[in-house]
Amino acid sequence: MKKLINAPEKVVEDMLTGMVAAHPQYVRKLSGYSCLVNPQSPITNKVGIVSGGGSGHEPSHAGFIGRGMLDAACAGNVFSSPTPDHFLEAAKVVDSGAGVLMVIKNYSGDLMNSQMAEEMAEFEGVKVTRVIVDDDVAVKNSTYTTGRRGIAGTVFVHKIAGAKAAQGADLDEVKRVAEKTVANVRSMGMALTPCIVPIAGKANFELAEDEMEIGMGIHGEPGITRCKLAPADEITSTLLEKIIQDLPFGKGDEVAVLVNGLGATPLMELYVINKKIAEICAEKGIRIHRTYVGEYMTALEMAGASITLLRLDEELKALLDAPADTIAFKQF
Amino acid sequence: MKKLINAPEKVVEDMLTGMVAAHPQYVRKLSGYSCLVNPQSPITNKVGIVSGGGSGHEPSHAGFIGRGMLDAACAGNVFSSPTPDHFLEAAKVVDSGAGVLMVIKNYSGDLMNSQMAEEMAEFEGVKVTRVIVDDDVAVKNSTYTTGRRGIAGTVFVHKIAGAKAAQGADLDEVKRVAEKTVANVRSMGMALTPCIVPIAGKANFELAEDEMEIGMGIHGEPGITRCKLAPADEITSTLLEKIIQDLPFGKGDEVAVLVNGLGATPLMELYVINKKIAEICAEKGIRIHRTYVGEYMTALEMAGASITLLRLDEELKALLDAPADTIAFKQF
Repeated sequence: MKKLINAPEKVVEDMLTGMVAAHPQYVRKLSGYSCLVNPQSPITNKVGIVSGGGSGHEPSHAGFIGRGMLDAACAGNVFSSPTPDHFLEAAKVVDSGAGVLMVIKNYSGDLMNSQMAEEMAEFEGVKVTRVIVDDDVAVKNSTYTTGRRGIAGTVFVHKIAGAKAAQGADLDEVKRVAEKTVANVRSMGMALTPCIVPIAGKANFELAEDEMEIGMGIHGEPGITRCKLAPADEITSTLLEKIIQDLPFGKGDEVAVLVNGLGATPLMELYVINKKIAEICAEKGIRIHRTYVGEYMTALEMAGASITLLRLDEELKALLDAPADTIAFKQF
Repeated sequence: MKKLINAPEKVVEDMLTGMVAAHPQYVRKLSGYSCLVNPQSPITNKVGIVSGGGSGHEPSHAGFIGRGMLDAACAGNVFSSPTPDHFLEAAKVVDSGAGVLMVIKNYSGDLMNSQMAEEMAEFEGVKVTRVIVDDDVAVKNSTYTTGRRGIAGTVFVHKIAGAKAAQGADLDEVKRVAEKTVANVRSMGMALTPCIVPIAGKANFELAEDEMEIGMGIHGEPGITRCKLAPADEITSTLLEKIIQDLPFGKGDEVAVLVNGLGATPLMELYVINKKIAEICAEKGIRIHRTYVGEYMTALEMAGASITLLRLDEELKALLDAPADTIAFKQF
């Protein structure tokens, strides 16, 4: 296992320490918890936005703490959900009295732990509600999931709910736009290589030198098909067709595009993918309002990429366009 | 070779097309040239800043085009310098009459081609001057280099020269702060794995499963030592000690830190490295003004990282802190 770490059991702690050291203006650590929060929390009259999940998806989720996105992020062990006490503490710290929205990806552990936190928070007088993101069109039900998996589309939920909260909207309104985002966002990914969970020390599956897996999840969950490596244009078409047919997206729709690297894929290759996305959307009369290319929701050192489309109306467009100032998502 | 590309000989063209499609507000392509420029070029009365080099280091260099950094970037073939006509055309397009600074990394091909462009530009009445970046303390002379190599510290030169130009300084002043940055910036990297140039189709060296190379260059040039993989803290100490001793950096110095991923290294691991950097700097009384962590100067899918320190005075600090709005470097 080739990793720049000190010890598998220390990697999340070391990472959080290094993150706070790098970006003290954006994040502080909650003592005794594996959570980072905006140092200005709670922000008066603002609905708090909390996200989190297993570590290994950086910059998700703490990289999105800051003005116009998240107030807190809970970091579980690698690919393992944070326990309820972490979600609860984060919610309590960011609550200004306006309540807290938790943005949760649809994995069994995250669902269970965040639900318990929601119930415990209610008991402590903090109003918490959740939105569950399940944007991955590849498979229904998966290794750790009932229903669809939540992947990179989650970042759009962070952005849009965060923008709405920054405008001073109440919890119901923030939840409404978050759910509207979930209803309009679709993603799918593919992998060229597996990744290695530090504590396991070895990859949990193998792909031959000429193989790829279409529809693979961000923890290495099985996809739709394992097949021979193909040219980028062909792979992009395969992913995008399935995404487009799912909602479905159609002629005249306006979308935001996210081309997300899974960890080891050069930015060069993500732009090669984006070339084909732009061509296909142009052919189909789907208008692209904004495109994001980079690493947003990774899977350690997995090589591969995912594509996300978000259908926009005027409300979502304005919220997507609103400024954000976080570690890994800055928009003027 | 597992890459998300269409054909090795098309990868740079496809990438540039995808980049313009993603970020038309930041970059347009010069027809007939492998160059991207700010669509607003030339900016009245502003010194133009041009950079470039071989492709494969994304987001360098086109990712830094925008307000407060570069006006243009020339993209050679992978790990191969752009020819003089590309540098010349870029300089001509961004010149407002105030002249152009080219920021060049110290590799023989880049030096030769940019020098020819400088001479040709003079012949055409465009005032061009260059700054050569050689921040890599690992080795003197290397595969493609006489003297030291230019690596991730180049990004600080882009930032500081770009900020000075944005303030309306003249060419001499912009060059002066760029050279001051070069004089105060030091970097060193290490690799866990090689990378594959698409047209070659295979790695140009191998590292055993338990080996790393300290001081490796961003094209896979040999470093100082090949040795057994060590804990991240130990690797960080090795790199940072050599960097600190070189300038030398000392007690009371104020610095900016850049922890740069080479392509396949998870952000998690870069933050683990930063934890140790912060500890060592605190021990030595070196004050950290700002820290950047992420992929800035990559080497395709190489796993590994580099560390850069820039010693700041009040002038450099103000220029580093100035706003920037580019594809891959945004600062409010």
